[in-house]
This record gives sequence, C-alpha cells and structure tokens, in this order.
Amino acid sequence: MRALVLERQHELSLREIDLPLEVGPTDVKIALHTVGVCGSDVHYYTHGRIGNFIVNAPMVLGHEAAGTVVEVGSKVTNLKVGDRVCMEPGIPDLSSRASKLGIYNVDPSVTFWATPPVHGVLTPFTVHPAAFTYKLPDNVSFAEGAMVEPFAVGMQAAARARIAPGDVGAVIGAGPIGIMVALAALAGGCSKVLISDFSKEKLEIAGRYDGIIPVDLTKESFAAAIERETDKWGADVVFEASGSAKAYTGIFDLVRPGGALVLVGLPVDPVNFDVPGAIAKEVRIETVFRYANIYDRAIALIGSGKVDLKPLITGTYAFKDSIAAFERAAKALPTDVKLQILMED
Amino acid sequence: MRALVLERQHELSLREIDLPLEVGPTDVKIALHTVGVCGSDVHYYTHGRIGNFIVNAPMVLGHEAAGTVVEVGSKVTNLKVGDRVCMEPGIPDLSSRASKLGIYNVDPSVTFWATPPVHGVLTPFTVHPAAFTYKLPDNVSFAEGAMVEPFAVGMQAAARARIAPGDVGAVIGAGPIGIMVALAALAGGCSKVLISDFSKEKLEIAGRYDGIIPVDLTKESFAAAIERETDKWGADVVFEASGSAKAYTGIFDLVRPGGALVLVGLPVDPVNFDVPGAIAKEVRIETVFRYANIYDRAIALIGSGKVDLKPLITGTYAFKDSIAAFERAAKALPTDVKLQILMED
Amino acid sequence: MRALVLERQHELSLREIDLPLEVGPTDVKIALHTVGVCGSDVHYYTHGRIGNFIVNAPMVLGHEAAGTVVEVGSKVTNLKVGDRVCMEPGIPDLSSRASKLGIYNVDPSVTFWATPPVHGVLTPFTVHPAAFTYKLPDNVSFAEGAMVEPFAVGMQAAARARIAPGDVGAVIGAGPIGIMVALAALAGGCSKVLISDFSKEKLEIAGRYDGIIPVDLTKESFAAAIERETDKWGADVVFEASGSAKAYTGIFDLVRPGGALVLVGLPVDPVNFDVPGAIAKEVRIETVFRYANIYDRAIALIGSGKVDLKPLITGTYAFKDSIAAFERAAKALPTDVKLQILMED
Amino acid sequence: MRALVLERQHELSLREIDLPLEVGPTDVKIALHTVGVCGSDVHYYTHGRIGNFIVNAPMVLGHEAAGTVVEVGSKVTNLKVGDRVCMEPGIPDLSSRASKLGIYNVDPSVTFWATPPVHGVLTPFTVHPAAFTYKLPDNVSFAEGAMVEPFAVGMQAAARARIAPGDVGAVIGAGPIGIMVALAALAGGCSKVLISDFSKEKLEIAGRYDGIIPVDLTKESFAAAIERETDKWGADVVFEASGSAKAYTGIFDLVRPGGALVLVGLPVDPVNFDVPGAIAKEVRIETVFRYANIYDRAIALIGSGKVDLKPLITGTYAFKDSIAAFERAAKALPTDVKLQILMED
Repeated sequence: MRALVLERQHELSLREIDLPLEVGPTDVKIALHTVGVCGSDVHYYTHGRIGNFIVNAPMVLGHEAAGTVVEVGSKVTNLKVGDRVCMEPGIPDLSSRASKLGIYNVDPSVTFWATPPVHGVLTPFTVHPAAFTYKLPDNVSFAEGAMVEPFAVGMQAAARARIAPGDVGAVIGAGPIGIMVALAALAGGCSKVLISDFSKEKLEIAGRYDGIIPVDLTKESFAAAIERETDKWGADVVFEASGSAKAYTGIFDLVRPGGALVLVGLPVDPVNFDVPGAIAKEVRIETVFRYANIYDRAIALIGSGKVDLKPLITGTYAFKDSIAAFERAAKALPTDVKLQILMED
Repeated sequence: MRALVLERQHELSLREIDLPLEVGPTDVKIALHTVGVCGSDVHYYTHGRIGNFIVNAPMVLGHEAAGTVVEVGSKVTNLKVGDRVCMEPGIPDLSSRASKLGIYNVDPSVTFWATPPVHGVLTPFTVHPAAFTYKLPDNVSFAEGAMVEPFAVGMQAAARARIAPGDVGAVIGAGPIGIMVALAALAGGCSKVLISDFSKEKLEIAGRYDGIIPVDLTKESFAAAIERETDKWGADVVFEASGSAKAYTGIFDLVRPGGALVLVGLPVDPVNFDVPGAIAKEVRIETVFRYANIYDRAIALIGSGKVDLKPLITGTYAFKDSIAAFERAAKALPTDVKLQILMED
Repeated sequence: MRALVLERQHELSLREIDLPLEVGPTDVKIALHTVGVCGSDVHYYTHGRIGNFIVNAPMVLGHEAAGTVVEVGSKVTNLKVGDRVCMEPGIPDLSSRASKLGIYNVDPSVTFWATPPVHGVLTPFTVHPAAFTYKLPDNVSFAEGAMVEPFAVGMQAAARARIAPGDVGAVIGAGPIGIMVALAALAGGCSKVLISDFSKEKLEIAGRYDGIIPVDLTKESFAAAIERETDKWGADVVFEASGSAKAYTGIFDLVRPGGALVLVGLPVDPVNFDVPGAIAKEVRIETVFRYANIYDRAIALIGSGKVDLKPLITGTYAFKDSIAAFERAAKALPTDVKLQILMED
Repeated sequence: MRALVLERQHELSLREIDLPLEVGPTDVKIALHTVGVCGSDVHYYTHGRIGNFIVNAPMVLGHEAAGTVVEVGSKVTNLKVGDRVCMEPGIPDLSSRASKLGIYNVDPSVTFWATPPVHGVLTPFTVHPAAFTYKLPDNVSFAEGAMVEPFAVGMQAAARARIAPGDVGAVIGAGPIGIMVALAALAGGCSKVLISDFSKEKLEIAGRYDGIIPVDLTKESFAAAIERETDKWGADVVFEASGSAKAYTGIFDLVRPGGALVLVGLPVDPVNFDVPGAIAKEVRIETVFRYANIYDRAIALIGSGKVDLKPLITGTYAFKDSIAAFERAAKALPTDVKLQILMED
C-alpha cells in the first residue's frame, strides 16, 4: 500500500510498503480521509528520534487521523460501515493494571502510531480497534476530526487541572499545543485564559478567540500580566505548554496560593525547579501524558460548537504532496498552526 | 430608614424602620443600587415561612443586591469608597469549624439576609463585612451585580458536580434556578446542557442560549431525550432544580453509569428515592446549600462575557413600586425570570 | 464436574454438571480450595431471585473463592502454575466505555459468578481471566483469600467515601458487610469507627477490633452516640450497611456539615429520604456497587497485617457438606459472620 | 515574663522579656506545660535565619506546645478554664481569600510562632485565639499534645496525598518529619510504608512500628526495594521528606504509573527535576506547607490509639535547662527524634 514513509532522518518517500490489514473480530478497517502533521512527525523527520524512540527502520508517519469505516469485525457493535470516524492512535493492553484503572495512557505496553517501531497512518487504509475509534457527529468535518488528536492533549491538560468553574487559566506558550490547551481550559470552565509567547503571530492567532488574552513577552512579563488580571492573587491554574526550560524560572510566581501547575511541554534541557517556591504556596503540580477517556468529550465540545478548531488549520495538502507539507511544517512558521493532508482524491 | 418591610404574611409595607448602620473596623457601608426579587422573598410574602424559618416580626426583604461603597472600616484594605460592589448575603462565624474548612455556607451559626429574624436590604443603605463584599468589574452593571446571588447557586451546583470538560449536563426544571444551573454548568465545562420543563415559555427562554437544549416534557420524556443526545449512555451530570417531588421517579435513568446527580431544588413532599437504582449505576449524589467561595468566580464569568445574565432580567421597578414588583413576582408568570428593584432615583 | 447446584428455590443438590473448562490465551484454570457462602448465594436458595435476577435454570452457587492455578493460557504473564490466588467474580467487557474509564463494575455487560444465568464456583475447577485473578502473598491463607470478595465491598465503600486521615466513621448495621465496611474504613484512614446494631452478638464480634466502637441501638440512638463521640459535630462519613429502609429516618442527623453518606445496603422497602435534610448540611452521598480496582489493595491490607479477617470465619464445611453449610447460613445466626466450604480433601 | 530568648545567632538566654498577655474576646490564655524543640528552632539558633526569615531582634523560641487554659475571652464557647489543650502556632487572617477557601496555611498574612519577628512560647504563659486551640482528650498527655505540631506536618502530607485505602507508601528520609509522614500515611490508609535513610539508627526507630519497612540505602537502592515490595509496579505515593536535593535524582522511578509524589522537605540546593520522567508516568505532585484543618484529626488519631508518638520523645528537659536541650538538639544525634521542655515545676 502507498504510504508516506520516513526512511531515515531527513529522508521521506511516498512509496509502496507492506502493511497488515487483517480485520480482527473487535477491529474496524478505515479509509483515511484527513491526516494532520504533528510536531512529533516532523521531529522524527528532522532528528530521527525523540528521546529513546529512534527510527531504526522505515516507518509510516501520521497519527492525527479521520476517515470512514469500510469494514467491521464480527464482534463490533458500536460502529458500522460508512461511519465517519476519528481514531485514538494509542492502543493499550486493555487487561493491564493501568488500563483497568482507567489510565490506559500510562500502560507501559501501549503502542502508538508513528512512534518507532509502530507505523502511522499516512496511507489509504488502516485497521484499528473499534474501542478506540470514535464516530464523528454529522456537523463535524473530517478536517476537524483529524484535529481531535492534538485537541485531546489540551483536553487531557484541562481534565488533569480539575478546573473549578470560573477559574483563571494561564498558558505558557502559544504554539499549537498551547492554543489547544487554552481552548480546552476555556471550554472546560475557565472564565478567561491568558496565553504568553514571544511571537506576535502566534499571539495574534490565539487572541482571535473570545476569552483568550494574549500576553506579549517582549512587552511585559507573564507574572505582571497575571497580577494585573487577577488582582494580585495569581492564576488558579497555570499550564506549561512551551516545553522551554526557561519557562520554569519564576513559574510559581504565576500561581495563586493553593493553585495548580500543569506540565504539558517536554523540556529538553534541565529545568530550574523551585521546590521551596512550590511548597510556600502549596501548589499542586499535574503532568500530562497524551490522553485517556478524552476523545468522546473532545468530539462533544467540537460538535456542540463550543470549540472551533477550523481556524487553526492553516494549510491543506493532497497526499501526493505530503513531502511538501512536511517541508513546510519543518520550517515551523509562526503563522502556521496545523497542516493537514487529504488522503482522498 | 425607609425599607420594604414584610409585616406579616401577605402584608408588605414601604415604611421607615430602624436599622443598625454602624460600620465596624472590617465592615463597609453600601448604598444599595439594585435588588433582585427572589423566590424566597416572595415565599415569605405569600406563606410567612419557609420550613422552620417563620416571620414572627417585621422583616426587611431582599438579598440579591448590588450597590456602591460609601464608607469603609478602619481595617478594610480590599475596598474603597466609590467601588461598585455586590454582596454575599450570608455572614458566617469565620472562626467556626465549618468556616475554617472553607465550607462556611454550612456553618450552623451563619446569618442570612431576609431570613427571619435577619433583615434584608430593600432599603437605601446597609453595612456588611468587607470579606463578603465583592468589587464589580467596570463592564458588569449593577443589574448584573444583583444577579450574582442567584447565579451563585447555579455556580455552586456546577462546582459540586465536579464537571469534567466536555461532560453532558441535564437540568430538571427551567425555572430561574434551573436556568442559572444550566448556564453555570455550560460555562463550567459541559459541552451541552439539556433542560426539561412542562412550560413552553420557560423552555423558550432557556433555549435562546447556545448550548442549552430545551426538552418539552409535554412531548417527550427527559429520559428519551437524554438517551438520544448521549447515544444511550446517559448524562454525566444531572441537576435536580425543579424542587418537585415527582422529578425523583426514574431520575437515575437519566444518569450514566458512574455519573452524578446534583440536588438543588427543595422538594416539599416526600420523594420516591430509588436507592437500588442509584447503587446499580454507582451514582454519586451531591447536594447544594447556597454557596461558598463562589462570588468571585461567578463575577469573573460574567465579566469575561462567558455568561450573559441580562436577558433574564424581565422586569425592573422603582423602589417606590416595590410592592407592585412583589405582586407580579407572586404570580410566577412563566415569561418572567427575574424582577429587580432600583433603589436609586 | 461435581458442583453445588441450585435447582430451584429451596432446592440444592451436589451433583455432576457440565461446565466449560476451556482455557483461552488470557485465561487461567484454577483448582478451587475455599469458597465462602455469601448472603446472595443464600438468598437465591431461599427466594430463587434477587430483584430481576431469577434462577430459571440450574445454577452453580459460590463466588467468594480462592484456589491454586493449575494451567495458564498462552499469553498470560502475571501468573504461573502453582500460584495461590483469589478471583474477582465479575468479568466485564474490557473494551466497554465503563471499563475504559476504570469503572468496570458498572459496565452493563459484566457477567458475575452465581448471578443467573452465570454459574458460580462451588465446584473443583474453574477457568477465569488472568486479569481478574490475583496472587495471594505467602502469609495470606486460602481462607483469607476467599474473604477478599466480601472485604472488597467494604473497601469499595471506603474508597468511594474518600476518607481523609483521621475521619470519624459510622456504620449502620453490624452484619457481615457492615463489619467489612468498618474494617475497611478503619484501615483506610478513619481514627475510629462507630457501628450500630440491635444485636448484642453482632456488636460483640465487631467490638473485638481495636478502633471499632459498638453502639447498641436497644440502649441508645446512633445519633446520640455519634454526638457524644464527635463533640456534637457529627461523623465525617456515615455508611449505610444494614439495607434496612428504617435506617434512613434521621440519617442526616448522623453526618457532620459537609460530610458524606455512603450507601452500601440494598433496601427492599421504599425509604424515607430527607432531601432537605441532606441539602441543609450539603452532604455528599456516594453509592457502592460491588468493586473495581480493589482486590489488589484489599489483599495488600490483609497481607500487611493491618486487617485481620480470620476471626470472622465462624464455620468451615467440607464440600460434601455444602448443603448443611447453606442450611446453617439460611438461619442467619447473629453469632455467624462467614461460613466457608473447603473444596480440597 | 521569663522566656527562652534567641538574642542572635548562636546566642540563647533564659531571661525576662515583655510579652503581651491581653486576652481578647475570642482568645484564651494558656499556661504552657510542654514545648517541643523543632528543627526550625534549632536552625534559627545555629544559623540565625531560614530563607528570608532573619532573626533581627531578640525572639522567644518554641512553637510545639501544650498546656492548660487559665483564662477565656468573653466570646469563647469551645473552651473553658482547666481544659488541657495544644495550639496551632500559625494565626491567619480568617477573612482573607485563602482562609475563606479553607487553606489558611497559605494565607500570605499568617503569623507563626517563633518565626521572626513573631515570638514563640518557651515561656510560662501565652494568649492564643480559641479557634486555633484544641482540647486534648483525657488519654492524651501533654507530651503527646506537644507532638501534635510536628505530626500535623505528616498528616498534612498524608491528606494532600489523597491516599486510597491500601496504597503502598514510600518515604524518603527517616528524620523526625519522615517518621511523622510515615506514621500519618500508615494511619491514613496505606497498607504499608517503606522508609529509606542512610542512618541505621534512624531506620531502627522507624522500623519499630508495624507496617513501616525500613530500607537501608547503604545496602540497596530505594528503587530496588520498592520494586521488590510492589511487584515492579512502583509505590502509589512517594513522600520526599529528606530535604536533600540528591533525593530528586531518579525519584520518578519510585512512583507507579499515575501515582503521586508529595514534597515535604525543603531542599537548600537546586534539584535535578526530571520533567519528562514525571510526564511519562503522568505523576501528580503535591506540596506541603505546614497544615490546615489537621489538628483535630491528628489528635483524633493519637487519642484513638491508632498512632503512638510517645516512643519518639527521646529526651525531656526542665525549662531551666532549655539551653542544654538546644545544645543537644543542635548535635542532631541519629538516636534522637524529639526533645521536649517541661515548663511546669
């Protein structure tokens, strides 16, 4: 089957590759329609690895996907041929200790699309467990369906934050994940969400949404902005979504006494973590690893119109132009949020 | 001082009455601007009592209030003369066991405006602890400020529900409190909120809000509507806001396995409470008594524009016409949500 | 295979019956060693039904079981032949919506041993999913292993209660489940647990445990005892474990403001549920349906010596005398807590 | 009044000093009986400062105290003359935003005994708010009463951990606070608690308690011990109670997927905080600052006999020998846990 294959670092090819397409009794077969380009896909392309995950063999990219069910396994009851769906790219062992607890995202045996050595789905068809395939409402497009995956990360952050209605949120970093977090926090109960970045372009995109207050770090500190917006009390929940080690310096100044800090971004460099600063305010710190039990609620928020992800799709490419999409994504233009690839003609 | 005094059941008068106006070191004095007419005010007027609270002596009515600070006590730091404010009508003993726990609403020693024998604030001035007086943002009107009290009940319900982002909510009863609960649940993280009633007029008002789905009980059962809207799973959180004992029959059919039921309404008659039905789904049941630590977040949601309470103000009267306002409120017109009284000229 | 079969109401026989013993790839085969007699087993014997679960065909009884692994499926990694184990009697669909959430106990498709039409395990061998089979530590006997099931109900109650360290607990009803709840609440963080009953014998058994305070309802009301023991504040957590409808009258008098009520017992008759009483104290009400993710922690508490269930085993019968065991159990002697049946010679 | 006064770094004197003893309407006056010597008292003696808190003027030491009420203010209802009591040494502003939320420990305006410039209570009498003075049960001695303060830190850690019944706990550091945390975690619901240290003497003291498993770091790593004791799953809750920056290296190896890390110790040096390691397991991190709403539950656990702190009192001095007590405490003998000073003759 034709697929976008990462051969090795810096080398992509659109070529035929053998992929298993056997439909087990609890599986569905899906014709892919739209696949988003994720930062991690791009990182494998540019660096060949993320941490201990190393591309040692050709690997199909892509894990933000929506499509149409074309075949269902004998025991599948929740889906039927023709259903428009999106898919959770991680497949846990459902009988593991973590899965039984409902936290299947941290099951050590989980496999995840486009994470070596597991293939992704930039290819016309895939087979997936029905339990991790979610029907899209009629009013949610394939393009939006393929946005559910990155939005689910934001939603997991919002869920872990345990937002109380009317909380003030603050998000460090207005990249794609930062914006997803801000939208999820807002839809998830915050009265308003401040978001900080050094990029005017990114802030301009984030600031188009009602309730999101962009803070330009070239002009004022985030601490000063939060102090102003919260009458010197601090944000109820601060989300670190930049992945920058520098964000940790003074981070507890942003949080109110008894508030929460949610860590989403993965810093590469060592961070300056102020334990006494956290303790002095008795801050609760949550961490976010992908998502669990989030897809249905993410879809519900998109379907109800409470969250509009469409403005974040800043470029769409045909499957045959996938490599161009990756080359553009690798540039990380501040005006780009999400590029998508259309698998259908 | 002139005030709207409930002399006894069915008898209101607008007359002079002695009210203490001494400003203690942690108090503020407020010139009242707008006072809402609450169902409980009306109930004292029509019945002379609510449960064990009996009007045995003349009592000033009114507890949904906004105004302007005109004097501050010597130790007050959070407010200054001229601040536009709204007030939490319950004053707990801050050193009580409940208050120390942060649940000052259930402090047995709390006193509450317009709950016998405590006077309310349908009068030009009042003195109140600064700790329970909240500054209104510039973009929140006095009329909205006086809506904070009933909205706070809805907010407390949403807070106690522990809504996860994207939850589906369902509210039984589209009266003033039902609508407040629906708005709070929606702002507090629900993807959508179904609301049921037998009154077309009430449903019409509730249904004007995006995300609120009115369900006409003269046409279909709430269970059927929820089943349809949740793919037969049930609502994540059901709020009982009708106060009708009848609402309890089959109530657990509305809730998803492991979901929550939040009791807001006070039924007068005995209810048919299906313990085995609750247990079979392991439903969590929360109850709501007024509110604690809610005013600031309620104001934040109004100030950010996420919640618009203005359409719910269906009538405004001058102070001198207070009695007419109460007479209309006593009719409980289905087209009325909230009547307010203007204290200023 | 020989088994204790409930033919119909009042009619038990120890006879041969066909039972499937095929070991699937994720299953284990277990030689049963000890099986407890549960109130529900007895109820099927005496009444032929529990609610909508009706014994319409011969059914093997028994679901509180411990034994030894004698065969493991090809994909089983957590267990090996010879392991001493106990088993969770409910088997959910691991890919269901409830199971993915970690609340597999409320998965509507769960099957449960000795709940019609599913066979139980009063028989020499059974096959069970490895995921619901738990290894016993060396210092936990088979007899204790077969006590894990009823203790798990108490543990689920303690878990749902969200006990804070040092809470005062109160348990209504000193039957087998009431005692299990009291022990779990005590081990789970309560400083002390009051337990009430009308039976001197039951209270005597419960009162042998340090930290459990028996309250004889023939001598004083539970409300009076709790008032005395909590300086008039009320219990932090009250557990209803009697299943008596009468227990609901005045039940909220037992709970402190902002406290919790946990419903474990299944009342047959309608209960007098005081909604305004619950609301006035803003009580949280939790319900308990079997258990999920509890077996390992129940075993840990027994294994560490923190919970000693051995004194609660008040009679042991050989498999060939099973019917005598059930006849004694049906008498519900107040001096009996748990009868067990030994499957091995 | 005679008091133990820290004049400046390294210089203690037992001398007369003016201390206010006016009893306000909500205060009580207490004759001190027993006062414990805390590590922070000793630190002020040896270093003259803790962080930004600097001893710039003579300051009375001591904040772990029990005594007898000798006078009550006009509005005090919860206490009477003759009551044996212990006192919470922090006095918040009860009307502050944090206090209203129930987290008065993080009220920025809190004053705390023996934290510059506030005097402590190594002196015969003190005046304290009745709301922060707690009656001791008859079976709790003054010596135990003076242990409530350090135990409350452990209890706050256990409370913040949100222990589920049967959790496995792990405590880094077997100093006084580590032992307090271990005891609180055990009483608070853990099935067992591992505790690690390099000191044989400290581990020997901790290991005398049933359910506490000492791990000698000179012989094996904590990770290895936890792996062994949890079947390679990790501890449900890890408490950092050593205050050593070194403890942070590899700390997330100790925690199970989805588990919690609770930070109690205050590291002086920068820590190596592994954000990706925390995220990969989606660890929740809680921090502990003193305590709030903990004294009553700490006393309840001591009074019920569930927690025995008496073996931890390793030396008792008369008030006149206070300086000797401090000199011994400054040696930080591994065989010492808590030294106390008797104020009475």
